[in-house]
Amino acid sequence: MDIRTPTLLIDKDKCLKNIKKMLKKAEKSNAELRPHFKTHFSYEVGSWFRSQGVSKCTVSSVGMAKYFAANGWDDITIAFPYNPLEAEEISKLASKIKLNILIVSLDSLEHALKHVNEKVGFFIKIDVGTGRTGLDPRNEELIGQMIAESSDKIMFKGFLAHAGHTYGCKDLESIQWIFDGAAKALSHLKQKFGGVISYGDTPSCSMMEDISFCDEMRPGNFVFYDWMQHNIGSCAIEEISVCLACPVVAVHAERNEIVIYGGGVHLSKDRIIEKDIMGKDQTCFGKMVILNKSGWNTEIKGNVARLSQEHGVVKLSPEEIAHVKVGDLIGVIPVHSCLTADLQGYYLSTTGERIEKMTKH
Amino acid sequence: MDIRTPTLLIDKDKCLKNIKKMLKKAEKSNAELRPHFKTHFSYEVGSWFRSQGVSKCTVSSVGMAKYFAANGWDDITIAFPYNPLEAEEISKLASKIKLNILIVSLDSLEHALKHVNEKVGFFIKIDVGTGRTGLDPRNEELIGQMIAESSDKIMFKGFLAHAGHTYGCKDLESIQWIFDGAAKALSHLKQKFGGVISYGDTPSCSMMEDISFCDEMRPGNFVFYDWMQHNIGSCAIEEISVCLACPVVAVHAERNEIVIYGGGVHLSKDRIIEKDIMGKDQTCFGKMVILNKSGWNTEIKGNVARLSQEHGVVKLSPEEIAHVKVGDLIGVIPVHSCLTADLQGYYLSTTGERIEKMTKH
Repeated sequence: MDIRTPTLLIDKDKCLKNIKKMLKKAEKSNAELRPHFKTHFSYEVGSWFRSQGVSKCTVSSVGMAKYFAANGWDDITIAFPYNPLEAEEISKLASKIKLNILIVSLDSLEHALKHVNEKVGFFIKIDVGTGRTGLDPRNEELIGQMIAESSDKIMFKGFLAHAGHTYGCKDLESIQWIFDGAAKALSHLKQKFGGVISYGDTPSCSMMEDISFCDEMRPGNFVFYDWMQHNIGSCAIEEISVCLACPVVAVHAERNEIVIYGGGVHLSKDRIIEKDIMGKDQTCFGKMVILNKSGWNTEIKGNVARLSQEHGVVKLSPEEIAHVKVGDLIGVIPVHSCLTADLQGYYLSTTGERIEKMTKH
Repeated sequence: MDIRTPTLLIDKDKCLKNIKKMLKKAEKSNAELRPHFKTHFSYEVGSWFRSQGVSKCTVSSVGMAKYFAANGWDDITIAFPYNPLEAEEISKLASKIKLNILIVSLDSLEHALKHVNEKVGFFIKIDVGTGRTGLDPRNEELIGQMIAESSDKIMFKGFLAHAGHTYGCKDLESIQWIFDGAAKALSHLKQKFGGVISYGDTPSCSMMEDISFCDEMRPGNFVFYDWMQHNIGSCAIEEISVCLACPVVAVHAERNEIVIYGGGVHLSKDRIIEKDIMGKDQTCFGKMVILNKSGWNTEIKGNVARLSQEHGVVKLSPEEIAHVKVGDLIGVIPVHSCLTADLQGYYLSTTGERIEKMTKH
């Protein structure tokens, strides 16, 4: 492959395996998969889901909903709090496709009732402990009031939750604990008020065996996975389907570091703190691997320890550094594939095809 | 202004003031200003520099050099280590404009000598203590060898350094200390080997009174500045010329937080750790301000304490939160304006004009 600048490689076979595995989990749990497309931003990757029978999706912005609607997706949930300033855009889109929005407060609902002029479904966002947005599940009075205010146009669909705090978990037990609490609270609301339950963060959906308490699963990251998900325990390294190919521009054997063309504008500045082999905390912006003809080897060769705008600094062992020279291409497994994907103008499949995606303009 | 989604506002008057101030510093120091354009990515912002008499610029990638060359810049330094994989692109560009490249090792130089087929100038990168790339200034034997290997085509221009470790400084004294060490090392090399000295990080160029040891100043960030630079001491809040306008999508008075439409895909995940009013460490992804008709007020109203992909969570006082409601637009001063700028499809001037920029495709 003719790669000269940082380029995100996608292994389509791995993506398809990840999609099939999650579909199986959904089927087993008797839940529908409405995958979140904020991970890949790409109608081409979307078509891989469609090839497996998926016909509904989730997005995180009105702009992203418009992009996927223009590419044949006609049943979309915008799983981001209703933005009153986009009421007109939402109405326009809802005149063309089946659209669901997310309501996080009575204020938002009342605004939508006044200003959204087409039929939309709405989910009430329930805060299952993340502390970002949504209603306390114990606030049944307010929840009841909101459902009572819904109309034939702005229709109550059910309850939506995102257990984003699983991203801070390091073991199965803590994810199980969050999951059980969320399942209990949401099941109670469903029993009392009706509607469907839409649930889904990648750690829970990957690691919990039985997700049958919900009607709809909404994970997104799992199609790519990344080092953060691997660290949480959501995936094996072999399941991570994206890797940033980066040119080596300097080798500093005297300090066991190489410098790559690949920085914050390619990988994002998202990071995790993890233990190094000596048990000391280290910052990780990505993991170095070796590229091969069909993609990359899964053995980790080094840690991306520092990032500036265009540079990455990779720490590796003296044995490994001996094999690397200026002008080589190495691979970096991203810490957070969604943000890395957002930064690309396009992707490259491991079989050499350009994969188009949504871009900013 | 009709803003419905996160939009980066640019105050052109403030930019012009920042440019004029830095030009004055350069003039006083008898150095030429070759500003780094990796902060703004925009031929329109570039034209503001040109209006003040600047005719040379610095960029951080070959792609960026091509963008500015296509927009009339004909004397460009690529201040990123020579990437052997782009030798052909560099040659092509060098056939059209006056181009300088950055050499960080003998390997890189020997590759360029073989594979770059047009006249280019090269700077030897000197590591003045940042520990990212470049030669130890004490390694005079290697430096001498590299200069001896230069040719009529690949011409030695001088020494280039970036004291990126000033970004970790919290006071004038430590910046002065780094600056003095760099000045001494670079002046010695110039005396011994000739060539010019190209220097420039925004903290040094903003805070040092006399930069006359160098021939060329290369700061970039100063045209926008940001909260990180303010924290270092490089600028007053009033000098920061960019602000991300963000819709408010949720108000959580019970925990003194609002949730904005404005996340990692708009601001970047760059962050600083600073002291809150109680002297405790807090993470800061940006600072909330109030927008007004001509831009924004400079009084800080809250701290962007958490960011996810599209959401930002702002901590503010109970007094302030009483004035904010869902559907409002607030402003966020970015922590790192270069990375925030990279994430935009375009900018909006505070007088309502769309400002074009380089995008990824």
